[in-house]
Amino acid sequence: MARPRRLHLGAFMRPVGIHTAWWRYPGGLPDANFDIRHLARFARELEAAKFDAFFMADHLALLNMPVEALKRSATVTSFDPATLLPALAMVTERIGLIATASTTYDQPFHVARRFASLDHLSGGRAGWNVVTTSNPDAAKNFGLKHHPEHADRYDRAREFVEVVKGLWDSFADDAFLRDVESGIFFDPDRMHVLDHQGPHLSVRGPLNVARPVQGWPVIVQAGASEAGRQLAAETAEVIFGAAGSLEDGRRFAEDVRGRMAAIGRDPDHLKILPACFVVVGDTVEEARARRAHLDGLVHEASAVAALSIALGVDAGAFDPDGPLPEIPETNQSKTGRERAIALARRDNLTVRQLAQRLGGYAGLAMVGTPATIADEMQAWLEAGASDGFNIMVSDLPQGLEDFTRKVVPELQARGLFRRDYEGTTLREHLGLPRPENRFFA
Amino acid sequence: MARPRRLHLGAFMRPVGIHTAWWRYPGGLPDANFDIRHLARFARELEAAKFDAFFMADHLALLNMPVEALKRSATVTSFDPATLLPALAMVTERIGLIATASTTYDQPFHVARRFASLDHLSGGRAGWNVVTTSNPDAAKNFGLKHHPEHADRYDRAREFVEVVKGLWDSFADDAFLRDVESGIFFDPDRMHVLDHQGPHLSVRGPLNVARPVQGWPVIVQAGASEAGRQLAAETAEVIFGAAGSLEDGRRFAEDVRGRMAAIGRDPDHLKILPACFVVVGDTVEEARARRAHLDGLVHEASAVAALSIALGVDAGAFDPDGPLPEIPETNQSKTGRERAIALARRDNLTVRQLAQRLGGYAGLAMVGTPATIADEMQAWLEAGASDGFNIMVSDLPQGLEDFTRKVVPELQARGLFRRDYEGTTLREHLGLPRPENRFFA
Ligand SMILES: Cc1cc2nc3c(=O)[nH]c(=O)nc-3n(C[C@H](O)[C@H](O)[C@H](O)COP(=O)(O)O)c2cc1C
Ligand SMILES: Cc1cc2nc3c(=O)[nH]c(=O)nc-3n(C[C@H](O)[C@H](O)[C@H](O)COP(=O)(O)O)c2cc1C
Repeated sequence: MARPRRLHLGAFMRPVGIHTAWWRYPGGLPDANFDIRHLARFARELEAAKFDAFFMADHLALLNMPVEALKRSATVTSFDPATLLPALAMVTERIGLIATASTTYDQPFHVARRFASLDHLSGGRAGWNVVTTSNPDAAKNFGLKHHPEHADRYDRAREFVEVVKGLWDSFADDAFLRDVESGIFFDPDRMHVLDHQGPHLSVRGPLNVARPVQGWPVIVQAGASEAGRQLAAETAEVIFGAAGSLEDGRRFAEDVRGRMAAIGRDPDHLKILPACFVVVGDTVEEARARRAHLDGLVHEASAVAALSIALGVDAGAFDPDGPLPEIPETNQSKTGRERAIALARRDNLTVRQLAQRLGGYAGLAMVGTPATIADEMQAWLEAGASDGFNIMVSDLPQGLEDFTRKVVPELQARGLFRRDYEGTTLREHLGLPRPENRFFA
Repeated sequence: MARPRRLHLGAFMRPVGIHTAWWRYPGGLPDANFDIRHLARFARELEAAKFDAFFMADHLALLNMPVEALKRSATVTSFDPATLLPALAMVTERIGLIATASTTYDQPFHVARRFASLDHLSGGRAGWNVVTTSNPDAAKNFGLKHHPEHADRYDRAREFVEVVKGLWDSFADDAFLRDVESGIFFDPDRMHVLDHQGPHLSVRGPLNVARPVQGWPVIVQAGASEAGRQLAAETAEVIFGAAGSLEDGRRFAEDVRGRMAAIGRDPDHLKILPACFVVVGDTVEEARARRAHLDGLVHEASAVAALSIALGVDAGAFDPDGPLPEIPETNQSKTGRERAIALARRDNLTVRQLAQRLGGYAGLAMVGTPATIADEMQAWLEAGASDGFNIMVSDLPQGLEDFTRKVVPELQARGLFRRDYEGTTLREHLGLPRPENRFFA
């Protein structure tokens, strides 16, 4: 019998909780966003549980929500990921460190240099989550009137990733001789000047950093659109997906792997890790109660704002304790409306409960005991719907420790997750090959 | 009697040695540029000696020198400073961390966010060395055909610094309530939207980071031109000067302090720290021999290239062991030529020795025993020519430890340098006030 496939686990930190009310949960750490000691503790806890990676989201403007909701959100502010992750590199030894950086509002020379530096600093643990930036308000912080069009953003993203890889390959792995005797520090014949001239970017190079430890830091992608999937199929080594169910996940994986096959990429060179909110209890009832408690901490203003956005109508007039009334279809929000209606029906939610769910976190969730969560994860893995998950915990530090100390051992006992790191780099954790330098054998 | 004024000391790291041959010096660490363990050791050594700051230069392109010289330079590549300094923040507790960032090739939102993040991470130890970028080749790495004109660069720099300060002031110091009971994370009345629209930049804000621990990270400047001095007088809290002699230093300080007085700034709110190369010996002869040894390791190719650039003529044809011949004046290089001729005369150097000096390091140097170096520093301080120095050591680790373990105790014994940190932030080390938020009392 072949060795069973194993899960890969990332922790999606923003840099702390994803649920908008996590900071109010009993025992929470409301100031963790700006307290490096707490963040260091979380990273070490994840490393002790042998996670593949700590993953940090990024937003280049305040979240675009009404001020009544905004002022209640702990995620309104956070460190710059490219500043936080080098710090976390120094208090951990093995866990991968994935930072988000935008191809729309940054420059390839800066991005290449920063991730190369992080990769050197961390001994080969860096990953780059390539985003075109989801929040259109970012434009106004970077001298633009409008967020560029979706298609333009993805065109530039494709070119940007190519340029960054080209810059990482500026020096052959053996270019730096550092020969004290002859005084030759590097061999200029092992240096490549990129001289890129493209529709969106012109970048001469070379990068002024030695080739990264991993060759290239791991390329991660989270785009969900047609263009996003295509870019992922062409370039991503990890996808942070947003599938809402196993069946969605399976279809998504099939789609992306089909696109990879069409361009001749080995499907094993991509790991799909859907975002997954986890709420752990000693019984299923306890886990559900924990989630209900957490959702109950979402303030009415945030909840109503979230429901209104989802439905495309003002939800403030609805009876909070009644069922969701009939909602007319609007142009603005088709998928949001359908998703909200389906959620209310599936979980039998009142207007208030639905609004709080949407105002808290409403994507894929696994709510149960270590055994039921392990069952679900195993089912995804066996169905080929994912290669693991990008975990978001309900609350911190307790919810995080419940996952690392209760769910992880259950996964390990089933042979579904490593008991120890087998390599030292993020590529090795993920089972990804080290890329050849495209300019030097 | 008033307490004597004291020196402030920064260490100018690039991130390692400044002398192009330091890496060949016996006992050197040729791979230190990309080995965080060595860099962490240097930062800790400087902190144990109670230095004000570790200061990192930055270059956005390979140095523009002939390939025969370039391939012998250990400074051709280095980490991105904004990636290195957060890592060093985690292995130190008190020393200030000053990173260089360009106003020509970066965006104020990114710069404000990165330095605010570093300031939070480090507990208030961040400083920003504002440069307009000295290497014109950087343009080609950022999609531009030409480096913008000097005056344009400084215009943008002035506006850029104003915008960054405005972004740092996005939130009042007390904006973040994090009130678990009411669910209010921050008070929106204590948030300011900058809405900057200027000739070079438009930036809406607010920054998505809480106000830095120091209010603003310390603003550092190194521009030497008329425009550079004026910008420094208006905005800098530290100047890394390049005065070649005490008399030059005194004139420079007088000039800048005069400009400050003219706009009503308190001259105490600026510390002038000239760059100073130090070579330590147990006797003056030993120190001179150490320097000669180091200069002797500069390869002929690098040396001749440096001399040719300085003189504006090909120096390859000169007799290396003879004195400097008569050099016709060229348009291209007036100050470089005069400086080279004066240096050859003062130190009685052959062509080879002069070329190696220029190819190694030819700015202000203090070469002697702990006592003679302390004498020189004291003389600068007492003449009002500087408030301390930005030290560059001859070689590492030995030259660094000779300074921290021999010269620093001598300075301490004379009451010229602190025996321990008295505060926790870089501002406190430097005796600089914490700026008020310009939008909130
Ligand atoms: C798990 C996950 C994490 C994401 N993280 C970020 C992020 O940190 N910053 C960002 O701008 N967008 C982020 N996104 C949004 C995506 O980059 C993308 O904009 C979004 O999925 C919509 O897809 P599309 O742009 O292909 O239409 C994330 C998406 C997912 C599913
Ligand atoms: C001690 C010192 C450090 C400097 N560090 C940098 C640096 O890291 N990056 C850079 O582009 N320029 C650096 N410079 C150059 C200055 O920013 C400036 O370009 C130069 O002094 C010429 O002055 P000007 O631009 O006002 O003509 C440094 C200068 C000095 C004296």
